[in-house]
Amino acid sequence: MNKPVVVKSIERLNNEIVGQLEKFGVSTVHEAQGRMGLLASYMRPIYSGACVAGSAVTVSLPPGDNLMIHVAAEVCQPGDFLVVVPTSFCTDGYFGELLATSLRVRGVKGLVIEAGCRDVRALAEMKFPVWSRAISSQGTVKATLGSVNVPVVCAGVQIAPGDIVVADDDGVVVIGRATAQAVIEASTQRVAKEEATRRRLANGESGLDIYGWREKLAALGLEYGE
Amino acid sequence: MNKPVVVKSIERLNNEIVGQLEKFGVSTVHEAQGRMGLLASYMRPIYSGACVAGSAVTVSLPPGDNLMIHVAAEVCQPGDFLVVVPTSFCTDGYFGELLATSLRVRGVKGLVIEAGCRDVRALAEMKFPVWSRAISSQGTVKATLGSVNVPVVCAGVQIAPGDIVVADDDGVVVIGRATAQAVIEASTQRVAKEEATRRRLANGESGLDIYGWREKLAALGLEYGE
Amino acid sequence: MNKPVVVKSIERLNNEIVGQLEKFGVSTVHEAQGRMGLLASYMRPIYSGACVAGSAVTVSLPPGDNLMIHVAAEVCQPGDFLVVVPTSFCTDGYFGELLATSLRVRGVKGLVIEAGCRDVRALAEMKFPVWSRAISSQGTVKATLGSVNVPVVCAGVQIAPGDIVVADDDGVVVIGRATAQAVIEASTQRVAKEEATRRRLANGESGLDIYGWREKLAALGLEYGE
Amino acid sequence: MNKPVVVKSIERLNNEIVGQLEKFGVSTVHEAQGRMGLLASYMRPIYSGACVAGSAVTVSLPPGDNLMIHVAAEVCQPGDFLVVVPTSFCTDGYFGELLATSLRVRGVKGLVIEAGCRDVRALAEMKFPVWSRAISSQGTVKATLGSVNVPVVCAGVQIAPGDIVVADDDGVVVIGRATAQAVIEASTQRVAKEEATRRRLANGESGLDIYGWREKLAALGLEYGE
Amino acid sequence: MNKPVVVKSIERLNNEIVGQLEKFGVSTVHEAQGRMGLLASYMRPIYSGACVAGSAVTVSLPPGDNLMIHVAAEVCQPGDFLVVVPTSFCTDGYFGELLATSLRVRGVKGLVIEAGCRDVRALAEMKFPVWSRAISSQGTVKATLGSVNVPVVCAGVQIAPGDIVVADDDGVVVIGRATAQAVIEASTQRVAKEEATRRRLANGESGLDIYGWREKLAALGLEYGE
Amino acid sequence: MNKPVVVKSIERLNNEIVGQLEKFGVSTVHEAQGRMGLLASYMRPIYSGACVAGSAVTVSLPPGDNLMIHVAAEVCQPGDFLVVVPTSFCTDGYFGELLATSLRVRGVKGLVIEAGCRDVRALAEMKFPVWSRAISSQGTVKATLGSVNVPVVCAGVQIAPGDIVVADDDGVVVIGRATAQAVIEASTQRVAKEEATRRRLANGESGLDIYGWREKLAALGLEYGE
Repeated sequence: MNKPVVVKSIERLNNEIVGQLEKFGVSTVHEAQGRMGLLASYMRPIYSGACVAGSAVTVSLPPGDNLMIHVAAEVCQPGDFLVVVPTSFCTDGYFGELLATSLRVRGVKGLVIEAGCRDVRALAEMKFPVWSRAISSQGTVKATLGSVNVPVVCAGVQIAPGDIVVADDDGVVVIGRATAQAVIEASTQRVAKEEATRRRLANGESGLDIYGWREKLAALGLEYGE
Repeated sequence: MNKPVVVKSIERLNNEIVGQLEKFGVSTVHEAQGRMGLLASYMRPIYSGACVAGSAVTVSLPPGDNLMIHVAAEVCQPGDFLVVVPTSFCTDGYFGELLATSLRVRGVKGLVIEAGCRDVRALAEMKFPVWSRAISSQGTVKATLGSVNVPVVCAGVQIAPGDIVVADDDGVVVIGRATAQAVIEASTQRVAKEEATRRRLANGESGLDIYGWREKLAALGLEYGE
Repeated sequence: MNKPVVVKSIERLNNEIVGQLEKFGVSTVHEAQGRMGLLASYMRPIYSGACVAGSAVTVSLPPGDNLMIHVAAEVCQPGDFLVVVPTSFCTDGYFGELLATSLRVRGVKGLVIEAGCRDVRALAEMKFPVWSRAISSQGTVKATLGSVNVPVVCAGVQIAPGDIVVADDDGVVVIGRATAQAVIEASTQRVAKEEATRRRLANGESGLDIYGWREKLAALGLEYGE
Repeated sequence: MNKPVVVKSIERLNNEIVGQLEKFGVSTVHEAQGRMGLLASYMRPIYSGACVAGSAVTVSLPPGDNLMIHVAAEVCQPGDFLVVVPTSFCTDGYFGELLATSLRVRGVKGLVIEAGCRDVRALAEMKFPVWSRAISSQGTVKATLGSVNVPVVCAGVQIAPGDIVVADDDGVVVIGRATAQAVIEASTQRVAKEEATRRRLANGESGLDIYGWREKLAALGLEYGE
Repeated sequence: MNKPVVVKSIERLNNEIVGQLEKFGVSTVHEAQGRMGLLASYMRPIYSGACVAGSAVTVSLPPGDNLMIHVAAEVCQPGDFLVVVPTSFCTDGYFGELLATSLRVRGVKGLVIEAGCRDVRALAEMKFPVWSRAISSQGTVKATLGSVNVPVVCAGVQIAPGDIVVADDDGVVVIGRATAQAVIEASTQRVAKEEATRRRLANGESGLDIYGWREKLAALGLEYGE
Repeated sequence: MNKPVVVKSIERLNNEIVGQLEKFGVSTVHEAQGRMGLLASYMRPIYSGACVAGSAVTVSLPPGDNLMIHVAAEVCQPGDFLVVVPTSFCTDGYFGELLATSLRVRGVKGLVIEAGCRDVRALAEMKFPVWSRAISSQGTVKATLGSVNVPVVCAGVQIAPGDIVVADDDGVVVIGRATAQAVIEASTQRVAKEEATRRRLANGESGLDIYGWREKLAALGLEYGE
């Protein structure tokens, strides 16, 4: 009923579009698409400072078995972002420096994994960014099949192959291909608006004036006391 | 029964006194006031190395709604420390770089929030320190009132407006205004005593001799075996 | 029935052997000894970048009471690794800069503690590495006895005095004295093999070819689709 | 981009088919559909002994705001199973006895909610079953819109309106409409096979003989020692 | 600075008033006092079905040490509710059947403890209700002082001696003495109103009509689709 | 280095001795052996009211693979208590009604498992007691070997084959064979002493008088205030 399969070719947006999303970062993109698509906050970067975006290549695999990550590596293309989800709760260290070497040479931008990661020092040194729910040396076997490029649910969000994944120090967000352009536009507007607001705030203006909330607060009945 | 209110003027200690507490750091202050006032250890800094103290301006607000932080910003003064607590459990990202800009221009020292924070890279770059229970891009609405400068419970500790908050890499501790001077004195003594102990320990003396515990251990019945 | 005792002399491997394990790091050692001996992943370093190994000096002590760490310090020798476990769940800050000063002068390599640690900034500056389940200023008393150099269970792993502890950014692993030599040999082989694999992967070869898994995948029935 | 909408008519399987799934219970159904569709194990029943199945009516709503459950109640039909998911992490008590009264009169079978539930004693007495991640009295507001009968992710599983939800003391599982008939057949076979196995096990036969695993164990290299 | 003290006489409301709060239960009282005073949802009853209210006698004590519960027992009066909070995180089993026997004979209604409880079967049989964050046999020592009838923070809520504690299967809520009468009145109105609503809902009326929300939903822009 | 092995014959205490431990229950036995051997409190019974003791037959097996439980069943004898521990963190449902049927016919008293359990309703009906860290339908494969009757660490406690496991509503405790007789004697004395204390407490005497703590409290400096 859920026969393992590797889907080799998926539709991707071109990397230039993806690159625009990367520039905005997670919080802006998340807001710009109506506060949807954010992975649960237990998904954390293994080192600080990375901000990358890529096209999702998804992997569904068994607990404690990373065979399918090796299989998935082969179907990755430059600009991809690997998304790995076990079929049951697991914190084992599925991924380390050797797999990162293999993905790096194929141009993969990063990894998000609903499980553990290891070799974190080496990964930081080679600047291969990973977002995971655990850091663990616990090794995995290579015994059982799973699937590549099927829809998965990762940290509470449905991810389809080819979706755009954006990840930085704030977390991980997913954007559907169909809405990417609109999200870019909304993000662009948001950034411009925020830049103007930032200048006014830095000048000491109150947010209540900038956003025009004084009437609203009064209407809600806010009282000021000494 | 809990009508929203913004208390505009609170009593604060002068910033010179607060500055003395800042120099000692959390662990010393916590010990010096009898091991009280420490927030639960899930409150963590979003970046390492900050050590700040300030006068608490407190905010009680709804889950997923940060309207009242904007309101609170206006009543902050140089040397304040913002304390934000939702009325029910929430990890949303209430606070980011724009609010930090607004607080920075008013001289606010930092933020402790019983919820999530976002824009953590930008906050680290502008060196606005935050202690939070989560890092999350999850946006909040601005729809419902709460209160500013009412007593709150944050991470297990009651905080009144004007209390001193000290926060560093070890966590967050709260000191009442009435006891601040005594805590400063006790901290000063503690630091002096520790400096002497440190030198003796660094010379290889045993803590059991320095602290004079050998008799106590014998009285408790400790046995040494080969 | 569990009378407190301090065992003063334990058998240790010589530091040269321990040093070889240190070079391999946790993930390699863990794999080389058959994926055993890894502490639970909630044990995290208080700062990044340390990789140390040492002979376990174990401490079993009460919740909220660090008296026995002071006792244990006296029986430590150069090359030791302190392992501290409360008899019931506790996150208090048992360990700080003063104790680290005392251990440092005795040549202790590091600490793993199934509880909390404090003074983390000072510990990072003096480069005394600690792996703990929490960071907390919460002070402890010095009132009740425990034991030194008895077998303990730390983060799910049984540790005997004299066992080798290896710890780095990936976590903490324990190796029995009897198997240390075999683990070094297996680690050496593993590293050599991985180096060869790394070069091939960096050249773009597929792991499926390097590891020879194509037949296995076919035998398992993996299907590729477009 | 995510405009609130209430989809009034959804496709459902007829209740007779759903009723067959109910008879099998969660563990059997989960196995019969290839170990897919199981919600995370933190979703627990508020009382023991219920086993119900129904057609999913889904609700996506804000944290701390249950307005849309009232809206959803109106579009429910006999045999439905309400599925409620906040857009960010929340444990507030969205649901209690009054809403259950409203759902009961419409023939709704039960509720699964990625948040909190209250009035648990009254719900147990009226035998309205709920699976939730928390029990909490914490009240919610009725201020903001959400959507009814859109796809949601609940406890790690994607649920579409009209999917079949089966829930009992073991947890909650979701079955797509298209596969329900196949799952019923596989479940039927599984139950029959298990009944035969149960009799043999109860007679003292070894599972190794019944399942024919002795050769496999030998091939894997299992050794028996005294 | 925090010298241990036992405050023997506290002000209490008379038991008749407290008894009225008991009848309403936690969720009603919590709503009636404006959704304040609810303890965190990890505080759970050790058995189902109890609903009790009493005047808080508070205990602040060390981790792993229950000496002060014995001290507190002596100052309890009929109608009291014991509230026990360690000064740092602890799940040890501070309380069991013997202490319950001692409290029962003094007319104490129940216990809420920010730690562990044991002898849960015996406690259920003698119907002495306990709300705790853990069930654990882990024994405690009787070595160190704490305080009785000082303000404490329990599961996120400040509790003063003499405050009313109401606890049932939904959790635990705290009411100040000064507001108890107003809460009773608001609860009475709430119950009456809910009874009327319940009847209408049971007759199949929609909550949207009963509460008059159709206009509001339209104003918010809710759209219905097929 | 950790070759899978099934140790068929282990030393056990006779069931009469074990039966005496069963009568005392977990909290008494835990106290009687000096507060050692208690499993972490996250190990909870799947239904209330069971109190059983047995000789440990231990199983170490991979995450998500229950093959070795079937193997272990064959080496169980009347009076045994199965102890199952995965080699890495896992909450899958390793155990259900069929395995319980197989164990029941062999006279096994119960199961403690550092993972998940399913079919909990059926297990409650057939009164086969299980203590687990999770309830989950998530199925497991039968692919990889592990070991039977090797030492394991379960929920923080080292357990050797043949150790006595006692489990009830308070949790799970382990007693070594060598100390069982002493624990029985200490438990007997404890129960007798508690019975006397219980009577005096029920008569209203203060624990402070019964235990003779008034002098101690005074010596510690306890002050009583009004």
